[in-house]
Amino acid sequence: MSQSERELELEQQLQEVASRITPLFTESIEAAEKHLNSLTKPPGSLGKLEEIARQLAGITGEIAPDLAKRAVIVMAGDHGVCEEGISAFPAEVTPQMVMNFLTGGAAVNVLARGAGADVFCVDMGVNADLTYDSLISCKTRKGTANMTKEAAMARQEALAAIIDGYELTEKLARDGYRMFATGEMGIGNTTASAALCAVLGAMTPDEAVGLGTGINEERRKHKVDVVCRAIACNVPNANDPLDVLAKVGGLEIAGLVGVILGAAANRCLVVIDGFISSAAALVAASIVPQATAYMLGSHLSQEQGHRKLLQTIGLSPMLQLDMRLGEGTGAVLGFHIIDAAVRIMREMATFESAGVSRG
Amino acid sequence: MSQSERELELEQQLQEVASRITPLFTESIEAAEKHLNSLTKPPGSLGKLEEIARQLAGITGEIAPDLAKRAVIVMAGDHGVCEEGISAFPAEVTPQMVMNFLTGGAAVNVLARGAGADVFCVDMGVNADLTYDSLISCKTRKGTANMTKEAAMARQEALAAIIDGYELTEKLARDGYRMFATGEMGIGNTTASAALCAVLGAMTPDEAVGLGTGINEERRKHKVDVVCRAIACNVPNANDPLDVLAKVGGLEIAGLVGVILGAAANRCLVVIDGFISSAAALVAASIVPQATAYMLGSHLSQEQGHRKLLQTIGLSPMLQLDMRLGEGTGAVLGFHIIDAAVRIMREMATFESAGVSRG
Repeated sequence: MSQSERELELEQQLQEVASRITPLFTESIEAAEKHLNSLTKPPGSLGKLEEIARQLAGITGEIAPDLAKRAVIVMAGDHGVCEEGISAFPAEVTPQMVMNFLTGGAAVNVLARGAGADVFCVDMGVNADLTYDSLISCKTRKGTANMTKEAAMARQEALAAIIDGYELTEKLARDGYRMFATGEMGIGNTTASAALCAVLGAMTPDEAVGLGTGINEERRKHKVDVVCRAIACNVPNANDPLDVLAKVGGLEIAGLVGVILGAAANRCLVVIDGFISSAAALVAASIVPQATAYMLGSHLSQEQGHRKLLQTIGLSPMLQLDMRLGEGTGAVLGFHIIDAAVRIMREMATFESAGVSRG
Repeated sequence: MSQSERELELEQQLQEVASRITPLFTESIEAAEKHLNSLTKPPGSLGKLEEIARQLAGITGEIAPDLAKRAVIVMAGDHGVCEEGISAFPAEVTPQMVMNFLTGGAAVNVLARGAGADVFCVDMGVNADLTYDSLISCKTRKGTANMTKEAAMARQEALAAIIDGYELTEKLARDGYRMFATGEMGIGNTTASAALCAVLGAMTPDEAVGLGTGINEERRKHKVDVVCRAIACNVPNANDPLDVLAKVGGLEIAGLVGVILGAAANRCLVVIDGFISSAAALVAASIVPQATAYMLGSHLSQEQGHRKLLQTIGLSPMLQLDMRLGEGTGAVLGFHIIDAAVRIMREMATFESAGVSRG
């Protein structure tokens, strides 16, 4: 099969994925709303918990779904743009952190244990030979190219990474996972995310570029320049999200696009983590707008562009913890809030059962 | 003992309470900071989780304290000002909801089960004869007086309610509880809280008065007028927080002031819920400024004055869930974030142990 035939096949697969993502069940949303208004509280007074309950009903068709099996998918990839000196950490940290995820010592592992979630770590394109039993390998290539000099990857590679993420999520959904959190690791990936936002998200590079893992303002200005050069070099087509993803994105970001679409196609909630995950959500929403109905924002990152990015997608954060670590740490904390929403639906007394007067 | 002798005795007790509230352990805060900076993450990147870890170390002297035993104290009281028609719900709902708390059907019960917390319901002044085994009775009087016509209660009554709250919390701390959440129930208590804010919190009545359990803008304007009349009638002395609490506060609010001071005096963290609990925290901080070191903000309520109230105390919310129910529901959700902070301290790998390069 020639390269263009393979690319065409992947494009068709993505079309099929898109066609599997359908609207939420409106009758179930109404049933959830009716139940919420029978509970012993002023109508609407549980705010976002009530919104989540309605969303879950619309996704699953049940007013108090069993979400016991939940996963955080941590996708790792390297970035050729690191050559430009845009990160506070050396690129070797990406494979080192993959090892940390696999042995359970990273922040996301710790917080996932607290939230009853399983961590799946995926090599989407780490620039090292990694052969650990518990590592899921979907390596399309060893890191992206330096996007200030050429496209980060070929369109076909971006498509392959999306389909890999999709298929993994579908397999997990078949295994009984009902809720997903997005996570990522990749030194340099706030730079790629900022470039995606600048092209797709109606933000200037200066708004989209933040301090990442901890650079200073001088380095940040340099990072803005790197993003501008990457866009000038590649001239991505803002009306073609795959073109943008391939030219200025990342392999782990493409994988997360697939995770998000995979969750939506399998009627599972997908909780979006911080800046990089949200950039993936923006790409996913640009490809399949209906996918946003399956997304839930988790936290507001300290990365400066995150607030505007979430607004662009139409998500609002539940947690304001000034975190800026990624890995899925904020999304996993969001699981506690989702659990609270389901528990409210399942356990709260009604005005009638408790003999409480209505307002 | 004459009334004034009893009042003097209570004032002296409160002075003793204040003297027991001492600064945080700075060496333990430094030890926590050192440990945090050894963990596999960019320094400071876990934001508020790191702040909580340092605060807990300063409170307990341990960098990863055992907080398994935690309680939400739900204090209930009635408000004479309900005669003025300021609430969307009738006053009879206060005792009805007390029954709901005792049988485990209210929102706070549901969320407390999710967070591993025990619920203690206290009758601080419900306007009904309540004799349930599991209800803690600290009834100073059956509801406050209508504060638009006279003082809500006598200074001695406010003092007695504070000391009751203090003693209950001290007893629970002796029983092994290491962390508390504040909760309340009392039809009319957003009106009293708004009056407290207007006098103590440098907010206008119009800023402090919100929609409570669900009144419309016309009723809100009436509620602003009621607060203004209560202040005009009683002329509380803003430099004497006890005078303010007695004249325009509430019995459950006074009880919560005692809970907060009791937690601080026993070196326990106290998680502050929404608008009414924060009004209690403002009174507590006005009496003993050092008590704020033991407080943690939880959520930002939809009640309009809450943001400014939290800023006045010096607290920042972790959760933005548009909730406006009270009962301790937001504070109890905050327990999950605190658990996450402790787990990070206990379980995360260090740069050295994981072989990860530093930036």
